[in-house]
Amino acid sequence: MAAEIAEQPAQWRTLLAEAGPELDATAATIRRYDPHTVLLVARGTSDHAALYAKYLVEIRLGKAAGLVSPSTMTAYAARPDLHGVLMLAVSQSGGSPDLVRSVEVARDCGALTVAVTNNAASDLARAAAAHVDVLAGPERAVAATKSYTAQLLALHQLLDRVGDGHGGAAAGLPDLADALLECREEIAALASRYRFAQRMVTTGRGYSYPTAREAALKLMETAYLSAQAFSAADLLHGPLAMIDPLVPVLAVVADGIGGRAMAPVLPRLAERGADVCIVGAAPDAQVVLPAGAPEELSPLLEILPFQLLALHVAVERGGDPDTPRGLAKVTETL
Amino acid sequence: MAAEIAEQPAQWRTLLAEAGPELDATAATIRRYDPHTVLLVARGTSDHAALYAKYLVEIRLGKAAGLVSPSTMTAYAARPDLHGVLMLAVSQSGGSPDLVRSVEVARDCGALTVAVTNNAASDLARAAAAHVDVLAGPERAVAATKSYTAQLLALHQLLDRVGDGHGGAAAGLPDLADALLECREEIAALASRYRFAQRMVTTGRGYSYPTAREAALKLMETAYLSAQAFSAADLLHGPLAMIDPLVPVLAVVADGIGGRAMAPVLPRLAERGADVCIVGAAPDAQVVLPAGAPEELSPLLEILPFQLLALHVAVERGGDPDTPRGLAKVTETL
Repeated sequence: MAAEIAEQPAQWRTLLAEAGPELDATAATIRRYDPHTVLLVARGTSDHAALYAKYLVEIRLGKAAGLVSPSTMTAYAARPDLHGVLMLAVSQSGGSPDLVRSVEVARDCGALTVAVTNNAASDLARAAAAHVDVLAGPERAVAATKSYTAQLLALHQLLDRVGDGHGGAAAGLPDLADALLECREEIAALASRYRFAQRMVTTGRGYSYPTAREAALKLMETAYLSAQAFSAADLLHGPLAMIDPLVPVLAVVADGIGGRAMAPVLPRLAERGADVCIVGAAPDAQVVLPAGAPEELSPLLEILPFQLLALHVAVERGGDPDTPRGLAKVTETL
Repeated sequence: MAAEIAEQPAQWRTLLAEAGPELDATAATIRRYDPHTVLLVARGTSDHAALYAKYLVEIRLGKAAGLVSPSTMTAYAARPDLHGVLMLAVSQSGGSPDLVRSVEVARDCGALTVAVTNNAASDLARAAAAHVDVLAGPERAVAATKSYTAQLLALHQLLDRVGDGHGGAAAGLPDLADALLECREEIAALASRYRFAQRMVTTGRGYSYPTAREAALKLMETAYLSAQAFSAADLLHGPLAMIDPLVPVLAVVADGIGGRAMAPVLPRLAERGADVCIVGAAPDAQVVLPAGAPEELSPLLEILPFQLLALHVAVERGGDPDTPRGLAKVTETL
């Protein structure tokens, strides 16, 4: 897991250098189709990449977007009219039968289907009308790290091209990630502070909400913490009551609109006596993100300290983050 | 909170007896508009009612559906093209500024907007092109109970009419709820078993997934438990690793497709040594749901034992479920 976290900037360079023609072709197909709605289907970590794409679709492309509940088309056999709909399926392995089935059904129901996976030979890649390879290379640790950020980058590059861009805003990102990954020792020290925590809350807003979700999942699956992610707005609609000084809060406060929308939430957390750690752009944040990335690309950087944190908390607790208990690398759900 | 839980069957009878003309008129408006996509916008408990409606839209109406992230249209000022889209806004108070703003923007962007609230005089009701009153009467406890099931019922009655139905399947529901609420003492005994639990997982699939989400929120906001809800499929994609004998699991296994889809998950929980309590249709379930409701209406019944459980755990812990710490009845987020 440590090696795969460290590989990320290099993998992003590969994707930016090599994926262009495939991305251009797929983006052109989508532009010709001109969907009125974009549906996303995914599970686990990939679901957080799909959530990121949902923000891009709504904000960057100005189209209606939604995350599909796969069971409606598999278990419940729903056959919705999906003419004019783009369905994006996101998966690391491309092997989960419920996603393959959802794409097959969506295609039959009139949707343009595009799979975004780390395995061009997968069933999901074959089931979809088009495929984007995230080019993350083999991932051996059960907890997905480099395949997640590769999905984020591939989705950004694809959707930016569906808009009027060429993905150029991401050019500086690998260097920023190299700089950020220098925080390894700082994060190891932070991990020791959470050695005995059992519960944790992660929060963010807008583009940083997928980061909060993915951070919680890493902490659950490697460090076995009960980590709960909330959009900062939803946190105020109930969950705030359970916050006390024994439930540490990790808040993503990046530079931009999502980060600024955290302003009303932080004082409410302070009122509850919360122990808040800020991962953000301000120089006094506990974990400082490098400046220079546009907000819509910030999630690629934001997640890196959380991946390291999950790894270090797991190791502190005597766990093996490469092979968490109870999990397999490819999860097959029906 | 106890009184409002007990009132639910009577409130449903009121809705079924009185809401027909308003529901017929709104359903006719939606049928004339014939949306290709239904977007839902809500926060907190109402978000779980919106999630229920999303399953109804996908399965019952065969249309694309998605939950909107309100921040995209408020904080990020996205102006998507929403011609052909129905936006359903669900709120107890109808007072949260971000929902009002989302509806105003959606209307400007071409959507047909319908608000479903418990306050016909609210800003949200006025902002939308049409309004459905859930007729739950004044709700004083901060934790929403009767307004939640009233939302579920109103959404069912509306969407069934948008299809080719007249909502008649719900006629027997209040009597079934009366029978189920007889489980009060059984639930009080169960609550004492969780007196010292700090973490909890709720799970369900399909129509029962919103129940798992709402159950977790009640347990968070009244009993201050770190309660996490997962679709049973997503549970296998990572969170399963954190389950151990100290993290009790409450599983909804109702009669129907969603309940049957739980079958592969329960043995995996057993492998992790989980302490599982089943709320379901089988006679050997720890909490037995009454037979006779169609699956798409089962969520109205499923949530009742969880409302009682949250109440009793809160009382066992010396809390006041009517006024949880840190919360207000109307949550205003921007």
